[in-house]
Amino acid sequence: MKTDLESIYLDHAAATPMSQRVIAAMQPYFSLDFYNPSSPYAPAIKVRRDYEAAKQAIAQAIGATADELVMTAGATESINLAFGSVSGHVVVPSIEHHAVLAAAKQHSHTTIEPDAHGRISVETVKQALRADTVLVSIALANNELGTIQPLRDIAQLIKETRAKRLADGDTTPLYLHSDASQGVGLLDVNVARLGVDLLTINAAKVYGPKQMGLLWADRHIVLKPQIVGGGQERGYRSGTENVAGTIGFATAMALADKHRKQEAERVGALRDMIEAQLTSAFPEAIVSGHKKHRLPGHLHISWPGIDAERLVFGLEAQGVLVATGSACAANKGTRSHVLTAIGLDDSTADGSLRLSLGALSTPENSKRAAESIIQVVQKEIERIKR
Amino acid sequence: MKTDLESIYLDHAAATPMSQRVIAAMQPYFSLDFYNPSSPYAPAIKVRRDYEAAKQAIAQAIGATADELVMTAGATESINLAFGSVSGHVVVPSIEHHAVLAAAKQHSHTTIEPDAHGRISVETVKQALRADTVLVSIALANNELGTIQPLRDIAQLIKETRAKRLADGDTTPLYLHSDASQGVGLLDVNVARLGVDLLTINAAKVYGPKQMGLLWADRHIVLKPQIVGGGQERGYRSGTENVAGTIGFATAMALADKHRKQEAERVGALRDMIEAQLTSAFPEAIVSGHKKHRLPGHLHISWPGIDAERLVFGLEAQGVLVATGSACAANKGTRSHVLTAIGLDDSTADGSLRLSLGALSTPENSKRAAESIIQVVQKEIERIKR
Repeated sequence: MKTDLESIYLDHAAATPMSQRVIAAMQPYFSLDFYNPSSPYAPAIKVRRDYEAAKQAIAQAIGATADELVMTAGATESINLAFGSVSGHVVVPSIEHHAVLAAAKQHSHTTIEPDAHGRISVETVKQALRADTVLVSIALANNELGTIQPLRDIAQLIKETRAKRLADGDTTPLYLHSDASQGVGLLDVNVARLGVDLLTINAAKVYGPKQMGLLWADRHIVLKPQIVGGGQERGYRSGTENVAGTIGFATAMALADKHRKQEAERVGALRDMIEAQLTSAFPEAIVSGHKKHRLPGHLHISWPGIDAERLVFGLEAQGVLVATGSACAANKGTRSHVLTAIGLDDSTADGSLRLSLGALSTPENSKRAAESIIQVVQKEIERIKR
Repeated sequence: MKTDLESIYLDHAAATPMSQRVIAAMQPYFSLDFYNPSSPYAPAIKVRRDYEAAKQAIAQAIGATADELVMTAGATESINLAFGSVSGHVVVPSIEHHAVLAAAKQHSHTTIEPDAHGRISVETVKQALRADTVLVSIALANNELGTIQPLRDIAQLIKETRAKRLADGDTTPLYLHSDASQGVGLLDVNVARLGVDLLTINAAKVYGPKQMGLLWADRHIVLKPQIVGGGQERGYRSGTENVAGTIGFATAMALADKHRKQEAERVGALRDMIEAQLTSAFPEAIVSGHKKHRLPGHLHISWPGIDAERLVFGLEAQGVLVATGSACAANKGTRSHVLTAIGLDDSTADGSLRLSLGALSTPENSKRAAESIIQVVQKEIERIKR
């Protein structure tokens, strides 16, 4: 994996470079094995077989089977497909990605609040459930804070509620959906262990192809297609299958699976080092997100009274690329809804950086990044004092 | 452009190999300029600028402006977006792609019939228009027969109907949508000259990236997003922008634009040669599609009483790859709805091959293909006689 030699990339949560092995796996399907997988001749049938094998491999990586997957053009499409498949009341945390919030708004919905660390409690979910609630959607990990949610416990609540409904002769469905895009490369995303009914993953967050995602749905769930036509993906998503993208996705998932544990440790150690450096240089800095339940690559840190946008530009001049808040929303210039939800005051929210480490992070560039951040923040503090 | 040396590809209407220049143009955005175009630092802003420039180039190639385009994951998504944006009665030919037929079924709709050559007359459209008709959708060229529709004349009818409605104080909208995917590399697709209000194009049919399409909508049309979230593509299609895909699409469109005329002539001459060889060897063979208004690469030919699937397999053994009917539908084994619509009897429909020539066609391999087809058909005729 290579990138601009000059820059230190600390924004893996916004985008990841495609792994060279992913690109190599996809390449043959661009101009050699380019056939339409629905064509009747042997080379096209081989393409179909490769496609199905890739889906099978992805399914295995999350503990599912291929016929429970719908390949999509990314997490946003997957989320819309999940929400579009239910009708009734939905429950979502206020700190979800814009895609989930926007999809929820198309339903009767309740927005639930996290604690100060960005964590959603089982109790909060429980209180929000209504008799007509059909879907609860909670990201595995928050994309700004890195806070990991107690999905298994929430899944348990959903299961119990469902069982109780059935015992009462109430057939109103109730599903738990999770967007696990932020966690895939670093956390276990086995659907059975998570206990979810629907799962969204984005290949672009895990060194896979961009414009590629999936929705996994437990086999008893009947989805409602958003895109109709030729009837591909079991009728749930028409359009010629994304062969190259799915094969790249499978390669990315296999790499993630293989290196997950050691990569989580490696990246976590680098993040801890940066965090230690920054909090030691600035005891007044505020680290947000859960201390224990946090993605190993995430560091959300605020300097109240400092303008984070100035920090981003100052750091960029030193070749350090970081984000203020989430990079996923096209509508910029607004204060992060996540930071407001965890109770950060405006001055603290506006002084926040999100660092997200990943495959491009090394001990050397992480150390250099910490030094640059200290220097740039120092300069900004001095500028304000003057 | 290279492919399996052994095989002769005569199915360009089903899929095209990505041009090497398209792949080269996309490559930097896989792992080098991989940034999220919404990120705030300069390298990401450069990615955003490259993306916008590519959209601008694509827009120019069809005589539009970039802010009228919505980039999608392919023609099927574009078609669904167009149909999902209107509510009211829609009119579609019975010979449209499954995506259009399926999208139409979600509305009150009238299906109109073509003539024996697969052509839709202005009169037929006129008769189908109702007071509550809001959308007419007609492919520029039929994907099975290659028949090119009189879109400009139909556009004129739509314009007149619209003007008349307005004069009567009736504000019911009326739009003409066309899926031009089959025509892009070989026909003029300038939106003003075609006179359409909405246009779908699929990059994968024009040697561009797969899983990449666009919907152009005249600027006075308000679309209804199918996929909500971060608000990308002017809110009409959320999800991180497909930077590499759009850049590849722009390259493909530029190549198509540059070579369109000479490529149409070149491919047309090869098609005519194959057609002459086949009809001379088999005077009883039936060529379908319009004699004059037909895509230069298309040849639809039938041998009544012969099993086309046997021909496909026989030809494949000789390295010649052709289709029976359309390869776009996942549901196979059914008789083509297009051939039924133009009045081919079952025995003729079942004996049909679709040959579609394109960039991989050469005088040598076209000649060889014609010889192979003659041989395989001959053998099949003799087998039946026995």
